[in-house]
Amino acid sequence: MEAEKIILGIDPGTLVMGFGLIRQQGKQMELMCMDVIKLNKLENQALKLKMIFEKLLGLIDEYHPDELAIEAPFFGKNVQSMLKLGRAQGVAMAAALYRDIPIFEYAPRTIKQTITGNGSASKEQVSKMLQAMLRFGEMPKYFDATDALAAAVCHCIDRGKDVNYTKPKKKRSSSSSDWSKFVLEHPDRITKKP
Amino acid sequence: MEAEKIILGIDPGTLVMGFGLIRQQGKQMELMCMDVIKLNKLENQALKLKMIFEKLLGLIDEYHPDELAIEAPFFGKNVQSMLKLGRAQGVAMAAALYRDIPIFEYAPRTIKQTITGNGSASKEQVSKMLQAMLRFGEMPKYFDATDALAAAVCHCIDRGKDVNYTKPKKKRSSSSSDWSKFVLEHPDRITKKP
Repeated sequence: MEAEKIILGIDPGTLVMGFGLIRQQGKQMELMCMDVIKLNKLENQALKLKMIFEKLLGLIDEYHPDELAIEAPFFGKNVQSMLKLGRAQGVAMAAALYRDIPIFEYAPRTIKQTITGNGSASKEQVSKMLQAMLRFGEMPKYFDATDALAAAVCHCIDRGKDVNYTKPKKKRSSSSSDWSKFVLEHPDRITKKP
Repeated sequence: MEAEKIILGIDPGTLVMGFGLIRQQGKQMELMCMDVIKLNKLENQALKLKMIFEKLLGLIDEYHPDELAIEAPFFGKNVQSMLKLGRAQGVAMAAALYRDIPIFEYAPRTIKQTITGNGSASKEQVSKMLQAMLRFGEMPKYFDATDALAAAVCHCIDRGKDVNYTKPKKKRSSSSSDWSKFVLEHPDRITKKP
């Protein structure tokens, strides 16, 4: 029997940070919670970053996740917004690193692809699929929450296929999922690493 | 008599992070230490970020700085490098925020201007001036150390004139710098907030 794992998915932004926690055992996934941390009312960037760090450290100490999955876009509109986003990500990652939690990073396209089969799926499609997979009733008010949950679910399905910061990349066995077949059949759908 | 303050200056990069500590009392400044944390041999980004966070937290707990001054470029080569830089900055800032240390951010040009009187001064010129001001003998091997020290010294001289994350932004007096003039003359160089 495979050991139970708790995965914390986050989607750090500069106005809202989404998070989602799931419990995984083998192919079974169970939603623990998901929500957002609102940052828009905090008057300066330091307060926002402090809030991200403290709330995440609080979540980590409450739920003891084994791994952190993060949605990490590699391209943005401009260098200024990427610096801000990088800071939010860095602060979030610091909380995990401080507690020795391995970080796994997934490109948005990989997450959409893994969950819906379509790397260009809309946020609505991703959240609908998550709702079906994890059987939650009410849809959260913010897509940031389902985006974060999507990162966690992607990591459960896709374990270590994308950027893995802490361990050597695992080789996928062809029997472990249908995705490798899909990937072979749709080489154009695969996001290349920068 | 003005209270003594300890300022930690940092220059977070993705390969080397510089730091410098000074003790300030009124107009007197005294060098406590400066050095670099080398990150280039660490095999992945998570290890680098973890190293930044832990080393900075160690410095903070050893020297108990009252304030953190950070050199923060607002423009970079590309979005990818800015995301990486933002992460390094975010992790460094998280250590200060975790210990409730106010963060003051200075653009490289402001630092050069404040220390040498020339916003386009070379790293050599900045470090020579610092050597004269703080009377240290041997020049450090890496400019990252003097760059970090420069941020701390700039903050001592320029206290709160630039971006101050913890208090409302002070209005700049037109005599204090050439930036307002620059901004008026180069509207195309200003990044708009997203």
